[in-house]
Amino acid sequence: MPTAPGHGLILVDGGITETVDARDRGLAYGDGVFRTVRVSGGRPVWWREHLDKLAADCERLAIAPPDPADWHTDLEILAGHHAGVLPDGVLKLVVTRGYGRRGYAYTSTTRPRRLAWFDPEPRLDEPGTAGIAIRVCRLRLGHQPALAGVKHLNRLENVLARAEWDDPEIREGVLLDRNDQVVSGVMSNLFIWRDGCLTTPPLDLCGVAGVARARLMRLAAASGMKVRETPLCLSDVLDAEEVLFTNSLIRIWRAARLDARVWPDPVVSEHLREMLDG
Amino acid sequence: MPTAPGHGLILVDGGITETVDARDRGLAYGDGVFRTVRVSGGRPVWWREHLDKLAADCERLAIAPPDPADWHTDLEILAGHHAGVLPDGVLKLVVTRGYGRRGYAYTSTTRPRRLAWFDPEPRLDEPGTAGIAIRVCRLRLGHQPALAGVKHLNRLENVLARAEWDDPEIREGVLLDRNDQVVSGVMSNLFIWRDGCLTTPPLDLCGVAGVARARLMRLAAASGMKVRETPLCLSDVLDAEEVLFTNSLIRIWRAARLDARVWPDPVVSEHLREMLDG
Repeated sequence: MPTAPGHGLILVDGGITETVDARDRGLAYGDGVFRTVRVSGGRPVWWREHLDKLAADCERLAIAPPDPADWHTDLEILAGHHAGVLPDGVLKLVVTRGYGRRGYAYTSTTRPRRLAWFDPEPRLDEPGTAGIAIRVCRLRLGHQPALAGVKHLNRLENVLARAEWDDPEIREGVLLDRNDQVVSGVMSNLFIWRDGCLTTPPLDLCGVAGVARARLMRLAAASGMKVRETPLCLSDVLDAEEVLFTNSLIRIWRAARLDARVWPDPVVSEHLREMLDG
Repeated sequence: MPTAPGHGLILVDGGITETVDARDRGLAYGDGVFRTVRVSGGRPVWWREHLDKLAADCERLAIAPPDPADWHTDLEILAGHHAGVLPDGVLKLVVTRGYGRRGYAYTSTTRPRRLAWFDPEPRLDEPGTAGIAIRVCRLRLGHQPALAGVKHLNRLENVLARAEWDDPEIREGVLLDRNDQVVSGVMSNLFIWRDGCLTTPPLDLCGVAGVARARLMRLAAASGMKVRETPLCLSDVLDAEEVLFTNSLIRIWRAARLDARVWPDPVVSEHLREMLDG
């Protein structure tokens, strides 16, 4: 059975399906976590980092993470539907707390549910060295240390922020928090480059700490670069020599324009992209 | 076909089913809203208020609310499975933004999805005039005016707060916000009674503005009582002559004990309960 075009192939707890139990707590309360993984060269990229982060996020919500062996079995099933080799595409992993009856309480016997959704879609329209136009979102992220950093299924803030614009020229929005501190992009993490230092905001009050962010911080520091996790305000972004957005699909995009502010040429983004891909 | 015991009967867009599309944005992002409605005497109680609030909450998220006629058809189908008359139970209504492919953006053509889940379960264990034991939750609600008051599907804060205790004697927890202001119960709204005045916290920064809360405020004011929406701190709760929790299922429960603080007898709760039910 080939993958339906534009819909992908979905496994729920290892079985091919199109649906999940309508009583799943993922639907009822957003009670779960997820990952978006790039598939390239027949393999999920940064796989170990994704599984580690997924397990860490599950732990933050006291959800028992799936056995990595189960994800590997899922990958084999998905590959089997593509003549044994996964084409390039996007793999979304979801873990929910599973079936729930009613009410916020759950029991220790609640069995988590595992979703793997593979979508062999066309490549992203890559901006390359030209960079992207960005905007600043009006929505301000709320502070919630109990959930900060976790890629959980409560993503209405991101949905509302993304709905603020429909100009296809604008590829990402900058999210600030309630104190007007810069947090991230809507679908990405944010870095600035200035005076030979790579800086990204801390994510202990809000935001999602992505795998690409952690990887870039680690690899840049290992290569001898100065890397800092420091609060940033919008003027820091505007004054930056280069502004960068990271996630597992885009890797690194650089900002080319924010309203009247223009960054005409790449500074370190190409170098960092090679580092991240290496 | 009778309702499966303990699982209830679910309609998705009017069709009897156990499942929803795994790509629903309700699951992916908690992108939707819900209502929990008491069914009594063969009818959903406070039905018009629930449909109005559901529509208002949809509007806050720019989701087109279902036509009330569709909900009425759902009620007829559900009743048809119970010899034409709905038994006492709980009806949960959910509206999600519907099918999504990937990414936070949605288009104006995204068609919302409607769920109606009826569960003819045993009555709640009603504390009656004896009241309930309560606790104060450690989790502090974050501030998000863009979502405050809405009964949306992003409920991880409530899940985490409810997971703080498993003592079955404790029936509700008090939620404070990041500024230590009282907001609500975990599954209910909160009122205090003191000096002849009924007071509940404003919900413009966080919390869910329930139908029972609005109804109680309206009816109490109409009966000549002083009703205020004013910030409260924990000492206001402890100093109250009576502390009340409201939602559509419990109607009104009164607090009997919070740690060492004991409220031995009802003050106005019985009167308010009759008012709410009237």
